[in-house]
Amino acid sequence: MRGGIDLGGTKIQAVVVDSKWNVVGQSRHPTPTKGKPAGVANEMANALREAAAEAGIEPGDLTSAGVGSPGDVDESTGSVSQARNLPGWEGTFETGPWLADALGTQVFVGNDVGVATEAEAKLGAGRDYNSLIGVFWGTGVGGGIILNGKPWLGRGAAGEIGHMVVKMDGARCTCGRRGCMEAYAGRAAMEIEARKRQKKGAKTDLFKIMEKRDRDRLTSGIWARALKAEDPLAKELIDRAVEALGAGVASAVNLLDVEAVIIGGGLGVRFGEPYVKRIRKAMMPHLFSDKNPPAIEVAALGDFGGGIGAALLASNREKKPSRRTRAKADAASGDGAAAGAETPA
Amino acid sequence: MRGGIDLGGTKIQAVVVDSKWNVVGQSRHPTPTKGKPAGVANEMANALREAAAEAGIEPGDLTSAGVGSPGDVDESTGSVSQARNLPGWEGTFETGPWLADALGTQVFVGNDVGVATEAEAKLGAGRDYNSLIGVFWGTGVGGGIILNGKPWLGRGAAGEIGHMVVKMDGARCTCGRRGCMEAYAGRAAMEIEARKRQKKGAKTDLFKIMEKRDRDRLTSGIWARALKAEDPLAKELIDRAVEALGAGVASAVNLLDVEAVIIGGGLGVRFGEPYVKRIRKAMMPHLFSDKNPPAIEVAALGDFGGGIGAALLASNREKKPSRRTRAKADAASGDGAAAGAETPA
Repeated sequence: MRGGIDLGGTKIQAVVVDSKWNVVGQSRHPTPTKGKPAGVANEMANALREAAAEAGIEPGDLTSAGVGSPGDVDESTGSVSQARNLPGWEGTFETGPWLADALGTQVFVGNDVGVATEAEAKLGAGRDYNSLIGVFWGTGVGGGIILNGKPWLGRGAAGEIGHMVVKMDGARCTCGRRGCMEAYAGRAAMEIEARKRQKKGAKTDLFKIMEKRDRDRLTSGIWARALKAEDPLAKELIDRAVEALGAGVASAVNLLDVEAVIIGGGLGVRFGEPYVKRIRKAMMPHLFSDKNPPAIEVAALGDFGGGIGAALLASNREKKPSRRTRAKADAASGDGAAAGAETPA
Repeated sequence: MRGGIDLGGTKIQAVVVDSKWNVVGQSRHPTPTKGKPAGVANEMANALREAAAEAGIEPGDLTSAGVGSPGDVDESTGSVSQARNLPGWEGTFETGPWLADALGTQVFVGNDVGVATEAEAKLGAGRDYNSLIGVFWGTGVGGGIILNGKPWLGRGAAGEIGHMVVKMDGARCTCGRRGCMEAYAGRAAMEIEARKRQKKGAKTDLFKIMEKRDRDRLTSGIWARALKAEDPLAKELIDRAVEALGAGVASAVNLLDVEAVIIGGGLGVRFGEPYVKRIRKAMMPHLFSDKNPPAIEVAALGDFGGGIGAALLASNREKKPSRRTRAKADAASGDGAAAGAETPA
């Protein structure tokens, strides 16, 4: 069995998967909003311990564990730098080594959006496609690109679909720039806009719902509740987000002409099919080859996609025992399937 | 020797190249604004005949000829459908067979932007890069993508960088949509805007220059002259185009993180280095990885890039004589280099 941790701006989702990538244990914690990287890492370790407990094993018995992290990830060392949306993470933190020490197993760290995209491409909604864009609609809007069945990383920084410009001189983005898709569609930017509008007198129950649910930020669940209650500000800001997503996704498809677009992320998964249909509708007027639109689908692995992707990364990176050692281990443990598990093609 | 024809919305550029891709003959005709596809094809044939004459050979003695065409190109048959910006070309015209018949040599047809991008990637400003985007700033704004040294075509329609959305609810594009980069930066859209503004009373000499030079549209040369004369409307519309190009190119780079961006096309080549620098400056504020910007360069093959690319396409597609036949032909013609020419790696 392997562990996977998806570190998001809002939540930490840990999973334990078996050799067939079924989730056999999981745990979800809110991402700390204060403190230092070690505090966040401690919360990640706790989440994975709970997921392991649910799967009936000790973390130290996991073959390996993976982490999908925001920020600049050095895959070779497991260190993470400049993870904005995470508290006190302007510098570099040795996420991989810290967790390996805390959990007692090998830990590999990859880019959050990258591992989630590969999980969808290999095991999820993207299985039938050779080229796709993964759009992760959450605290920010992340993107992952698969071309000819393989991740396209550019010089290491490809996939910043959230920072494609959909409106020159437009809204201020959390990245400091103007008019990015994320400035309209990212959960963090939407919350800033909601607070600003409320201050200016806009009527909304968004923050009442937040307090009632004992949260300190507008999570995807709060947005969903407000929409259900037909809160006018929530409706307006989500409509605005959908329009921006439609324009940005269309721009990306006009450039790359991929077979499919997979919509995931906290908001994408929470809102699901009806909103993916709305994004599709918002995309169509901007699509150049509108007679041949790409498939647009909800991420099939849902909230677990990032964690499963992190476990997939670990499986690809871990030091495999030699055949002889493995045969011995299999004989000793009787767990041939798990020990011999390989990444699916 | 091989022929290459670049069919643009404003001009037809024909070249004849030797086995080392040097241009040894060329001719340029304005693209007819009226008539049927056969009229345009006739003008293409005339241009290539003149280029051949300059090179001192008959068109029928060319090893082959290529055409870079706008519209939907069927490479297998050489037919072209729905070439907007060309007169009466809503249906399908058998460009390849028509020209082969008129010129007496094999003719192959490819996508205009695709062949120009490959020419820059293999022989021009992109030679040193493994991944690049070609941006052809002319009547429209076309894009070509090279990833891992190979063209990325998607499902056949990739590269529509001109129709990436840079301003939601923005200016009307010649494609009918709103807010496309081309709606601000395409020569055709800029001309429509200039006429509209002049009607509303804006002061400009753009149309006087046009009449004086006996033209019926605002060619890149006319824009250049107006800028030199510090025409305020020309300056304003070109500034607007540069801003849109900066935003659109940044969006594409944020998504793909390529090594280089090559700026070509009628306006790109005419304005050259100073404007490529301005596009770079307009891109920077939108670039997510702004510490690691791509190289931005002027298309090195200039106005001949499309034609050379078309000849390159022909060379890749033509039926090569068998070794034995070739040896015989070489012995007979004494032109071993040309007959044995291969596409450069």
